[in-house]
Amino acid sequence: MADTDSDTDTDATLTGAMLIGAARVHGAQGTVHGSDPRTGEQLAPAYGLGGGPDVERAAALAQEAFPRYRETAPEQRAAFLEQVAANLEAVAGELVERVVRETGIVRARVVGELARTTGQLRLFAELVREGGWAGARIDPALPDRVPLPRPDIRQRRIPLGPVAVFGASNFPLAFSVAGGDTASALAAGCPVVVKAHSAHPGTSELAGTAIQRAVERHGLPEGVFSLIFGTGEETGIRLVTDPRIRAVGFTGSRSGGTALMRAAAGRPVPIPVYAEMSSINPVFLLPGALRGERAAELGGAFTASLTTGAGQLCTSPGLVFGIEGPGLAAFTESAAAAVSAAPALPMLNTGIHASYAEGVARLGGLAEVTEAAAGLPGDGIAAPGRARLFTTTGDAFLAEPALHEEVFGASSLVVRLKDAGQLDTVVAALEGQLTATVHAAEDDEEDRRLARGLLRSLEDKVGRIVFNGWPTGVDVGHAMVHGGPFPATSDGRSTSVGTLAIDRFLRPVAYQNVPAGLLPAPVDTQNSLGLWRQVNGELTRD
Amino acid sequence: MADTDSDTDTDATLTGAMLIGAARVHGAQGTVHGSDPRTGEQLAPAYGLGGGPDVERAAALAQEAFPRYRETAPEQRAAFLEQVAANLEAVAGELVERVVRETGIVRARVVGELARTTGQLRLFAELVREGGWAGARIDPALPDRVPLPRPDIRQRRIPLGPVAVFGASNFPLAFSVAGGDTASALAAGCPVVVKAHSAHPGTSELAGTAIQRAVERHGLPEGVFSLIFGTGEETGIRLVTDPRIRAVGFTGSRSGGTALMRAAAGRPVPIPVYAEMSSINPVFLLPGALRGERAAELGGAFTASLTTGAGQLCTSPGLVFGIEGPGLAAFTESAAAAVSAAPALPMLNTGIHASYAEGVARLGGLAEVTEAAAGLPGDGIAAPGRARLFTTTGDAFLAEPALHEEVFGASSLVVRLKDAGQLDTVVAALEGQLTATVHAAEDDEEDRRLARGLLRSLEDKVGRIVFNGWPTGVDVGHAMVHGGPFPATSDGRSTSVGTLAIDRFLRPVAYQNVPAGLLPAPVDTQNSLGLWRQVNGELTRD
Repeated sequence: MADTDSDTDTDATLTGAMLIGAARVHGAQGTVHGSDPRTGEQLAPAYGLGGGPDVERAAALAQEAFPRYRETAPEQRAAFLEQVAANLEAVAGELVERVVRETGIVRARVVGELARTTGQLRLFAELVREGGWAGARIDPALPDRVPLPRPDIRQRRIPLGPVAVFGASNFPLAFSVAGGDTASALAAGCPVVVKAHSAHPGTSELAGTAIQRAVERHGLPEGVFSLIFGTGEETGIRLVTDPRIRAVGFTGSRSGGTALMRAAAGRPVPIPVYAEMSSINPVFLLPGALRGERAAELGGAFTASLTTGAGQLCTSPGLVFGIEGPGLAAFTESAAAAVSAAPALPMLNTGIHASYAEGVARLGGLAEVTEAAAGLPGDGIAAPGRARLFTTTGDAFLAEPALHEEVFGASSLVVRLKDAGQLDTVVAALEGQLTATVHAAEDDEEDRRLARGLLRSLEDKVGRIVFNGWPTGVDVGHAMVHGGPFPATSDGRSTSVGTLAIDRFLRPVAYQNVPAGLLPAPVDTQNSLGLWRQVNGELTRD
Repeated sequence: MADTDSDTDTDATLTGAMLIGAARVHGAQGTVHGSDPRTGEQLAPAYGLGGGPDVERAAALAQEAFPRYRETAPEQRAAFLEQVAANLEAVAGELVERVVRETGIVRARVVGELARTTGQLRLFAELVREGGWAGARIDPALPDRVPLPRPDIRQRRIPLGPVAVFGASNFPLAFSVAGGDTASALAAGCPVVVKAHSAHPGTSELAGTAIQRAVERHGLPEGVFSLIFGTGEETGIRLVTDPRIRAVGFTGSRSGGTALMRAAAGRPVPIPVYAEMSSINPVFLLPGALRGERAAELGGAFTASLTTGAGQLCTSPGLVFGIEGPGLAAFTESAAAAVSAAPALPMLNTGIHASYAEGVARLGGLAEVTEAAAGLPGDGIAAPGRARLFTTTGDAFLAEPALHEEVFGASSLVVRLKDAGQLDTVVAALEGQLTATVHAAEDDEEDRRLARGLLRSLEDKVGRIVFNGWPTGVDVGHAMVHGGPFPATSDGRSTSVGTLAIDRFLRPVAYQNVPAGLLPAPVDTQNSLGLWRQVNGELTRD
């Protein structure tokens, strides 16, 4: 069904095709179907999987589109991003319905995720217009400097080139075809080739069509966007090793992300990989925060965070540290009660459900680990995600590497530390994380002292520190960091959420004594774009 | 001889020792001597080479120093960097003398390089005080936002951790022990372990002592700086794979740089490598610029750039493109005459001299390549660098990959293109470069058209574009980019010269709802550091 609103241009018909530039192409390397994880029902249509020639065609078109796309004026690029958002909204009904069917995510969350996805496209449109991302710097000539005159030197940032984006299973809109990686790469001026996640092919086609139509409507070269379906690693590696691809955005598993990192590092010309992979998001409950009734309240609030989206969030709190004592016991009891009463939710697909079941069984089978609670069984759900709560000791956590691994789903482990001194030891033993959370009583002297120390040691391990809250819920803004040291991501110098994400796809270039008439707009003499620029190291808008 | 100036504290005595934290340690894995490339004379003292335990000790001290060093206030860190500069100046006489003896670089250039080195330390001190590098961003809480309130989110950048720095042979001060990588890493708050280049061990000890004494005088933890001597790759790989090292700065050969890249990517926790490696710095002579007398003038000026430092500069112009015709012939004739008259200069060491001789022989032996000129022989110089000029055709350049390889030294190749249309083809065939240079007549319509096209296509290949000048001479400022796509560097998103270099050693962290009393200074409520910060995406100093 073609949309008839004159301000948008998209299509909610599912065809089972890939989008390679302006074309719809049916892949010939086998097929994949979406399926409803609530019922196991297979969903039409069949999606044809692409092969090497499809990847090559998409990469070639992207390369061809790059010189023209990168030269688009800020207003033009911003309007294109806004068009993508409008096109998504024009098929909101069909899109939300398809996401619910392909992922089992509850409708209210999908509606929120769509709003987040369009909001993020519009935020990047605003950012493109504002222009500070160009990083304009000018060191004017100093002809009289001794011993040598200084030439005129100007710097701006330019886009890297075509970017490969890998959609995530757990955010089929916000971290997928038209999600944050795509939005930030397009904002930077990079064409994008998305490899769709095969668990939500219909959702991918709808979102991809919204982008494809926006490309067309705005008269951009067709190669600005392509969408490929393909079998897991093979197509992915092909895309990442294509010489025309210049950077990679990925959200998914540690094994998938590290495979792409290896492939990218092994290319004749290595390229950056921004992979968001694995995090167990430790929560630290300081003694003051576990006094009185607050311990039980925290247990309930923690469980609400843990069970959000059946725990299938990158920021799900998979680890809780507290100091052994009645406060921690009260927290654990309350959390266990809430977990026991938590209804099972459908997991995203049978593969993830199987991995979760395996992870939970492995955890529960370890010596020194006790199961404190299991959520309600999900009778009638094809891939039921039952919440689990385990407990162990600080010594066991330090001795057993398996306790440091992510179990993707609503499983968490409460670690009872001997004393406050063990806090530093467990922080030092942690791998890199997306987040860490600290609960502390603000009026408690000892909590403040411990929190101060924790803040400093956690900074070295994580991308975001949350105080007296929960790690789930990642706000899309200017200050957000959704990143962190390996293995949370492949590159802790970046974020995949928020406006700083545009930095991933840019690099600086300097212009020495380039004549005024040839200078790029961001560093021109008259500041025609009205940017904040560093002139002799000082910010100015002149 | 201990220095007696009360404002500085250093020592010009050469001991042959490594500097591991506050200690002087004589390596036991063999020895290396400096030698004078003008005479071949071996220079005392012998430098003992370190082994695994020395690397481990230096890395452990760096790791231990990190938490305290990264918390130093801007003023304290800036004063420390200025102290290093002052300490270097206090031994300027001995230092310059030793550089001349160990490298054969002419005294005037060494004096200039020392000024550049101290200037760059002071520039980073200024940058540290100014504080914009912290990248402070604040998205204040929006408690009334619907559907969900926004928490308070603040972002700043923190240092990565201990950095390994590999000194370069060709800038024994500015790109070595106390050079740009060290200055930018120390400015960022990262302790530094330098692996000295074994061709200038005495210079390294003098510069290292200046840093070691500054660490001591400013009461900083000893592990902030160490200096290791060791045999080439083995010690280097050991350092880069030490789990406590979190980033690498390197200037040197493509083979050395890519070995470090592989080692870093293969670690259990991969780390960023900033290697500046290989560049032939193409020069484009447009037809208008080769009209009349200017062709011959350019030939002379080109040769001056080519022969600077015996061509042992990363930005030496190793490739010249022009369109076949009388203008290019006049340029080539003039350049050949200048090259023929150029006196040989001592090369940095016999290894580099041997590689240069081999590279020049390889180039000269290729079909379609003609030797246009050779510089004067360097009778009496132990490692004489004779300039060479070769010519070939555009077709031959496109067909022969060996013509794209760097020959480190004063060798250059003039490529005669069939027509202006071949410009795009050769640019597309180029590997990544540090620089590209365009000579154009500003009042010539055709040159302007060609230059405009070249600017756009060159941006995608290089870190810096020079107009009507020469690539040698890299100004240290805010707008400089000394970087570029692989293989010019391992990571085109960065620069190793200029203030932007600090970005290499920082990563962002977000703070969500962190109480005012616990917020780090750059994102505190009162803006106590007086920084420019992004609040809701808008720059402000409030």
